[in-house]
Amino acid sequence: LEELKAPLVSLVADRETQDAIEKIDEVQNEIDKLNEQASEEILKVEQKYNKSRQPYFAKRAELIGKIPNFWVTAFVNHPQISALLSEEDEEVLQYLTKVEVSEFEDIKSGYKIVFHFDSNPFFNNAALTKEFHLNETGEPSTKGTNIDWQPGKDLTKKSGSPKAGKKRAHDEQESFFNWFCEAGDATTDELGEVIKDEIWPNPLQYYLASEIDEDNEDGDED
Amino acid sequence: LEELKAPLVSLVADRETQDAIEKIDEVQNEIDKLNEQASEEILKVEQKYNKSRQPYFAKRAELIGKIPNFWVTAFVNHPQISALLSEEDEEVLQYLTKVEVSEFEDIKSGYKIVFHFDSNPFFNNAALTKEFHLNETGEPSTKGTNIDWQPGKDLTKKSGSPKAGKKRAHDEQESFFNWFCEAGDATTDELGEVIKDEIWPNPLQYYLASEIDEDNEDGDED
Ligand SMILES: [Ca+2]
Ligand SMILES: [Ca+2]
Ligand SMILES: [Mg+2]
Ligand SMILES: [Mg+2]
Repeated sequence: LEELKAPLVSLVADRETQDAIEKIDEVQNEIDKLNEQASEEILKVEQKYNKSRQPYFAKRAELIGKIPNFWVTAFVNHPQISALLSEEDEEVLQYLTKVEVSEFEDIKSGYKIVFHFDSNPFFNNAALTKEFHLNETGEPSTKGTNIDWQPGKDLTKKSGSPKAGKKRAHDEQESFFNWFCEAGDATTDELGEVIKDEIWPNPLQYYLASEIDEDNEDGDED
Repeated sequence: LEELKAPLVSLVADRETQDAIEKIDEVQNEIDKLNEQASEEILKVEQKYNKSRQPYFAKRAELIGKIPNFWVTAFVNHPQISALLSEEDEEVLQYLTKVEVSEFEDIKSGYKIVFHFDSNPFFNNAALTKEFHLNETGEPSTKGTNIDWQPGKDLTKKSGSPKAGKKRAHDEQESFFNWFCEAGDATTDELGEVIKDEIWPNPLQYYLASEIDEDNEDGDED
């Protein structure tokens, strides 16, 4: 009898455990539903505020357009971006009149950065765009405008690997404009994220950083 | 006259720039206000759903309480946690009956993990708690329950640096229970985050991982 009892008790325990597991699974489904609802509600809040920020971004862009060299100054004053800029890049960026950063409507699928340029002696494009996409499986990808350089002005061809018979100067570097035609690591594009998360929320503070520096200098060298 | 004009033009430009800067600053303040409103609204959504998840977590805890060795099984089946468990830790964790993870009311200031234990031959505490706090300046800190070990049972004293005249076995490691009295790096406490972000959202899947393994084994060795 003792030997018969043991497996019975164990069977009963298994049935109780099995029953509890099934009920936990049901509870878990309810928790998962609430999690999805929470994500959707948060997304709606973000979309709502993205919309209500738009008129202020438009007003800001209009005001920024009145200040010569606003964007090149802001970029040069950001340490990480500045490190990516050659002297020639800075020349080109003097024609940068407007920057736009926008998340895609559903936010989680990515964002887009648009640079608007005055007509300039370097390229024919009025705007250069770089996009970051995450597809439904979370796969990242990027695309960028192919720049239509004026003859002999292509900064992305001027540096990089040394050409035969021509030694490059020690401090020459890749052009900032390579960014538009590079795939890079789309999930952690440092430049994209610095522009989206540091410059875009408050470009004025970077523009003003130089003003402060200049005010602290003795005399006026302009 | 030409020489007088230049500084005048430059003064006018400066005044226009100064004016634009002030207006950008005002626009920026409006954007900042919207950002704060968005954060507050998102926080309220998170708080609301934290509340509506509570009864499901309570129901889940009740059901989990019916399954012997639920938590030790779930932990052993999580690769990162399993790597932190000695054989003696696993013995103690067989007395772990309930786990609770809760974010503090304002969410951004941190979270708390509570382990409830049946009375056991290792320590006198009925519950062990580990808390992670972020103060207003973002400074992280942690605190944990001081464990009241039974004589000779303190697992945190059993390993670590080798004692004089006694070589430790090669595979001995620090006890899991050191975690309760370690400051560690509070911002990136891996164990805390694994429990909060991986185990807590769905402990059943880790518990069941072993069931599947056992079903695939030939014969029954129990
Ligand atoms: Ca530079
Ligand atoms: Ca282990
Ligand atoms: Mg703008
Ligand atoms: Mg529980």
